[in-house]
Amino acid sequence: MIRIVRPQDDRPVIAVIGAGFGGLNFCKTFRGDARIVLIDKHNHHAFQPLLYQVAMAGLAGSDVAAPVRGIFSRYRHVSSHMAQVDSIDLKNKTLRAGKSELRWDYLVMAMGGVTSYFGNDDWERHAPGLKTLGDALRLRRQLLTAFELAENEPDEMERRRLMTIVVVGGGPTGVELAGAMAELTNHVFRRDFRNIDPTRASVILVEALDRILPTFPSSLSESAREQLEELGVKVRLGTRVVNVQADRITVSSQSGEEDILTRNVLWAAGISAHPLTRQLGPDVELDKAGRVKVLPDLSVPGHPEVFVIGDAAYLEVDGTAVPGLAPAAIQMGKHAAKVIGREIAGDPSPPEERPAFRYRDRGTMATIGRRRAVAVSGPLRFSGYPAWLAWLFVHLIFLVGFRNKLTVMIQWAWQYLTYGRGARVVAEPLEDFVGAEGAQGAEGASAESAASA
Amino acid sequence: MIRIVRPQDDRPVIAVIGAGFGGLNFCKTFRGDARIVLIDKHNHHAFQPLLYQVAMAGLAGSDVAAPVRGIFSRYRHVSSHMAQVDSIDLKNKTLRAGKSELRWDYLVMAMGGVTSYFGNDDWERHAPGLKTLGDALRLRRQLLTAFELAENEPDEMERRRLMTIVVVGGGPTGVELAGAMAELTNHVFRRDFRNIDPTRASVILVEALDRILPTFPSSLSESAREQLEELGVKVRLGTRVVNVQADRITVSSQSGEEDILTRNVLWAAGISAHPLTRQLGPDVELDKAGRVKVLPDLSVPGHPEVFVIGDAAYLEVDGTAVPGLAPAAIQMGKHAAKVIGREIAGDPSPPEERPAFRYRDRGTMATIGRRRAVAVSGPLRFSGYPAWLAWLFVHLIFLVGFRNKLTVMIQWAWQYLTYGRGARVVAEPLEDFVGAEGAQGAEGASAESAASA
Repeated sequence: MIRIVRPQDDRPVIAVIGAGFGGLNFCKTFRGDARIVLIDKHNHHAFQPLLYQVAMAGLAGSDVAAPVRGIFSRYRHVSSHMAQVDSIDLKNKTLRAGKSELRWDYLVMAMGGVTSYFGNDDWERHAPGLKTLGDALRLRRQLLTAFELAENEPDEMERRRLMTIVVVGGGPTGVELAGAMAELTNHVFRRDFRNIDPTRASVILVEALDRILPTFPSSLSESAREQLEELGVKVRLGTRVVNVQADRITVSSQSGEEDILTRNVLWAAGISAHPLTRQLGPDVELDKAGRVKVLPDLSVPGHPEVFVIGDAAYLEVDGTAVPGLAPAAIQMGKHAAKVIGREIAGDPSPPEERPAFRYRDRGTMATIGRRRAVAVSGPLRFSGYPAWLAWLFVHLIFLVGFRNKLTVMIQWAWQYLTYGRGARVVAEPLEDFVGAEGAQGAEGASAESAASA
Repeated sequence: MIRIVRPQDDRPVIAVIGAGFGGLNFCKTFRGDARIVLIDKHNHHAFQPLLYQVAMAGLAGSDVAAPVRGIFSRYRHVSSHMAQVDSIDLKNKTLRAGKSELRWDYLVMAMGGVTSYFGNDDWERHAPGLKTLGDALRLRRQLLTAFELAENEPDEMERRRLMTIVVVGGGPTGVELAGAMAELTNHVFRRDFRNIDPTRASVILVEALDRILPTFPSSLSESAREQLEELGVKVRLGTRVVNVQADRITVSSQSGEEDILTRNVLWAAGISAHPLTRQLGPDVELDKAGRVKVLPDLSVPGHPEVFVIGDAAYLEVDGTAVPGLAPAAIQMGKHAAKVIGREIAGDPSPPEERPAFRYRDRGTMATIGRRRAVAVSGPLRFSGYPAWLAWLFVHLIFLVGFRNKLTVMIQWAWQYLTYGRGARVVAEPLEDFVGAEGAQGAEGASAESAASA
């Protein structure tokens, strides 16, 4: 369905797949005489670092998303298309989306990653991930509904399952989800229910390694664990997932295998590259997460006109892999824009003579809850209140769009002052999802009617 | 699934069905020694007068909705339940929701209305209504997607169908939708597309009567029509809908029958009472819209302990029907609370001696667009800028929740200054709805691929 109305010009066409951090920054910083076609299957750029707050009912979906067309309305050389890319033909320099075909001169692949279940795709049904705005809204719906069902549930056992939340994966997303969930139950839900006591909900964080936040200095991993436990999160280290079913998750640790009964498993454990990378053919080398091994200039070996950036790319600089983080994707987008811009301007350098990408690590951070976070920047390490303030500040600065910054700032101030969560809203009525998530409640509950006199 | 854990007390139970304006105000103003069980199939109160702005991508869903539990967290005598009421038994004073049963002493039916297609229920698929937050988000998705599909559509005819919006019904909702849609295409979309010219979209408002806003003074109807036409809306008076199909709407007027080719029909033409009223049995009289004919105290004839309020009730006061408007529902909720409160406090008056409901008409208003509106209050009539300011003010005041007021105020200020629409975000990717609304684009479009050199 990509129809390019081409005026009488023969400027080169740059196809960019994906409007995440990498694709967006490519398009924003590219300078040169070319036409950019930006393709994404969503109509918005989602600010992934704050998706967990949408899932936890702290922010509205549109607070953390910016419409792609709005972002580029003044960039006359950028046309954006809401479409799903089905296949890429590197030889003929074309891509297909639906019934249409686009011929490109340069291709920038910035599709990012997808949730990975390490080959256990059947777990997805019971353990949703958090990569898109749709994921965040579905997660919100599931968690809020679980407590609504618990409130009406006569069976004690089922009530416990509904009020147990297991977060799989101790990276930043898992830590943020677990911390926010504990705050939601302890503070927000506390006054709201009559039959259940939400402060008795269990939030369990499961991590296979022997510490959470493994990419952080170990002192901060330890601090993060303590801060989570202060919030009431049970942190289970050295614990692998063996199986996920509708009403339980089976984990394995030194003490053997164990079932945790729960209706709510959130998956924050693995990311692999978008499956489109696997369609590039046998001469394009991928790592085991499906990421394309790129040259130092970010181009694909043998295809100097094809670039892969962000979470879909694998690159080692000085023996260290560039991490799958927003700042790396942003920097890669800018780098690819510079390289392509130079070539279009007439620089004939082959890939090995082009500028090499260097990742500038300005630090990383993870938030745990109100006044709780960890942050590292060069030799500096922060935890608790100062790290939390730094986190708020950095995320507001990077959030796309002034309007979004303003409303997010207000929501945060509001939550800080009142412990309120304004976005505790599920659009669908109950009837619409008892079908989909119908195992909940309908299954085990005996039809007891504790009616009143 | 409604399980009432009843402590050692035998206070009467008041079941309230529906957390709209009527139910909410009943619960908020009721004073007396009773327990209230508030049942709604949604977990939120939706501020219906602003739903059209959610549909038109001006506001986020959570801006116009407040979680029911949050509203009543401090009302210890109110317990709220997210459940769907299946049936009501007036004789045994019980209601069923899912597998559970609730026995009530008083029943307050405040379910409001549902979109009515006057017996043509098959039109619903192609002509969605706007009564719930879910409706608003679906409408937003459909309209934004239509323009995305148009941008990629090679067939001129199909492009016109996608860019034609027909709003059926010239009441306040229809007028607001048509006006907002015209502003969206003329101002917001204007810069955003490359292949289509959104200002060439058609917005058509179809009304069977000879004027829009028939409940307003005719001078204001005329003013509203002029204001709509200034925005580019084609107002078709005296025009009835004969049929709605996936790619067209057939209308009939003095000049005969006519097909308008369109992929976007919005239905704002009819409301009937929630179907639960039809289950009350043969001895409860309904009007033809399914509304329960209530006594002047708002109770159901023969059932002094059952009250119907808001859009589900029909009552004439001094020969005039109480209108189906938010202020009427609010006033009815407060009235029923007073009547039941008195009786529980020991007043044994039979229904005919209870206080009679009187509707205090403080005025009505409808907004058309930026600085365009009409308003009437007693002998006063406003249109244009002053009416618009009054509309903004009144809607902010009545919006539930301080946080919502604040964020809505900011969004409005932002839109006023920039013509921006921050909520132009569709959560679902394209692949997820080409199935559902797949007739669009997939059907007629020839597989032309206007690829580039």
